[in-house]
Amino acid sequence: MTPGPVRRRLADGREILYFDDEPGRPHDAVDSRPLDRVTTDSELRWDPMFGGWAVLAGHRQARTYRPPAGRCPLCPTRGEYATEIPDASYDVVVFENRFPSFTGAGERPCTQPVEGLAVPGYGRCEVVVPTDVHKAGIADLSPGRVRTLIDAWAQRTDELSHRPDIAAVSVFENRGDAVGVTLEHTHQQIYAFPFVPPITARFAASMADHRDRTGRCLVCDQLTHSLDAGDRTVSRRTKWSVVVPFAARWPFEVNVVPHRHVRGLPDLDAPERDELAEVWRDLFRRYDALFDQPRLPTIAAWHQMPSGTVDGHLFAQAFSVQRDADKLKYLAGSESAYGQWVLDVPPERTAELLRAAG
Amino acid sequence: MTPGPVRRRLADGREILYFDDEPGRPHDAVDSRPLDRVTTDSELRWDPMFGGWAVLAGHRQARTYRPPAGRCPLCPTRGEYATEIPDASYDVVVFENRFPSFTGAGERPCTQPVEGLAVPGYGRCEVVVPTDVHKAGIADLSPGRVRTLIDAWAQRTDELSHRPDIAAVSVFENRGDAVGVTLEHTHQQIYAFPFVPPITARFAASMADHRDRTGRCLVCDQLTHSLDAGDRTVSRRTKWSVVVPFAARWPFEVNVVPHRHVRGLPDLDAPERDELAEVWRDLFRRYDALFDQPRLPTIAAWHQMPSGTVDGHLFAQAFSVQRDADKLKYLAGSESAYGQWVLDVPPERTAELLRAAG
Repeated sequence: MTPGPVRRRLADGREILYFDDEPGRPHDAVDSRPLDRVTTDSELRWDPMFGGWAVLAGHRQARTYRPPAGRCPLCPTRGEYATEIPDASYDVVVFENRFPSFTGAGERPCTQPVEGLAVPGYGRCEVVVPTDVHKAGIADLSPGRVRTLIDAWAQRTDELSHRPDIAAVSVFENRGDAVGVTLEHTHQQIYAFPFVPPITARFAASMADHRDRTGRCLVCDQLTHSLDAGDRTVSRRTKWSVVVPFAARWPFEVNVVPHRHVRGLPDLDAPERDELAEVWRDLFRRYDALFDQPRLPTIAAWHQMPSGTVDGHLFAQAFSVQRDADKLKYLAGSESAYGQWVLDVPPERTAELLRAAG
Repeated sequence: MTPGPVRRRLADGREILYFDDEPGRPHDAVDSRPLDRVTTDSELRWDPMFGGWAVLAGHRQARTYRPPAGRCPLCPTRGEYATEIPDASYDVVVFENRFPSFTGAGERPCTQPVEGLAVPGYGRCEVVVPTDVHKAGIADLSPGRVRTLIDAWAQRTDELSHRPDIAAVSVFENRGDAVGVTLEHTHQQIYAFPFVPPITARFAASMADHRDRTGRCLVCDQLTHSLDAGDRTVSRRTKWSVVVPFAARWPFEVNVVPHRHVRGLPDLDAPERDELAEVWRDLFRRYDALFDQPRLPTIAAWHQMPSGTVDGHLFAQAFSVQRDADKLKYLAGSESAYGQWVLDVPPERTAELLRAAG
């Protein structure tokens, strides 16, 4: 539905893709940096105690950490300082992460690992930059630009999920120092995992179980349940609703749910993408208004089904790590060691606050 | 094996228990504070999307948050200011948390919940204070005092795990601002859960599966595997070893494992408790030496089997949320939204650093 991106290579061979608001823009700038080829040593280690794969990516310890002003690697290249993006201006750009958790191509790790198993961490990590303005947040972008961004997310999901060695594609944005963001310039990340990450696996199992028991879609049922209850609804539009989940774990957690039963970002039609662009900007405007703090620290993550799963219902989960105007939500023993979240703010109160922030 | 604690009540009816290094110490001080009875509204909400119970504890939003000097609620009561502990001095004291995630007694929640289910959050949350010296850390305590502390953990586990409405007892210590600790005075917490928390459930399933497949204990096998490999061993004593797990997720993660196949803290014999007191102090001394920073932010958590499980092998998991001398490990999108940890420091390097810090 959208013209494909313009594809180029960075000096070290990494791919960079330009998604333009209007087609036909030239992308002829060349990356002239004397970059060494990225060498990574990502390793997946099977955890027989708590299950799942632990990812070891030692090279990430050296990743760019809060660079000084004028040294942002996500800004366009306009003067002496060559950034990750050779062009002097851009709309939406996607490139392979220089410090990836997963890289290269190979076989998916076996699904019944023996103890002590370690395999290479194949996969792909991408950085998505939706604006060449260093200080702009999602709420500052035009609806048209957010629409281009959504097209970029969808194209990347579609392409990566067709790779035989990719098991799941995630698209997420970390925002704010308190979330540990090392680069201030607004960006999203795409992790194309060589295995299904634990929460995605759990969600897929819940979907399958609900379908088996009731013949219905769990997300469709949850959405109906939330909209009927009413007191957890933040906003309801023609094609999308924003609701606080009944069993929220995080401060100011919401689900952004398409009304139509669509499997993933690539399946959204043009009117759905147009409305999502509005809904997405509106959500971040509400977050920023909540405590009158620009850039409330948030995580926003799309949940898409593992590759090859036919049933599925896309939604985004967004939440803050800040539980009050001046207090953070920390993950301590209960959460980090036992996996048990304790929430201070009732979901119904969250919805009330986010409605008022609209 | 140990004399039982001396039991008293605080002004609002909460229980307080004194565990003394030597028996016979009087505990006659009376809590004279005009405290209202604690009212809590803990609620468990079943999450049909990601599974498990979300705990809602709205009253905790008002919990004591980094009180000023001279207003520490965990210090002994010595002057005008009445703390949570009426005595003017104490060894180890345990009391019911004034801002608990779980409280009261009732039935365990049903294990096959329907959508939208909410039930009261019964259970018990306790605070354990191992010293009346405000600034003392675990490494500053005498081996005898740490031994008293271990006895307190064991007694509390034993008593609480026999309650029919308690499904699992966890004992953990959060340390450092970066972990979100709201009270600086060294303390541990005990959560007596009315359900089995997710990571405990996952571990119990791994244990059962390994036993089914091999006839052996998973923790025994993992310990042998680690000690044989050697490069992940931090320290090895007669009855305990400290090893870095092969598939560690956290910076400077270690397991503290008894060589004997014991199910939980109450099953440790006297020589095992004596040696653990040394091992525990030594571990925190190493953490503090790692970057020459007293009180490196850490979480230390005991993994015990759910109540009623016959098979089991106790161990503690300890780790830091700091990945370098000046950098924290944040849980962002990959960890918080997809449950996927990415580690920067190889387990073998962690062991090397912790051995050198000994």
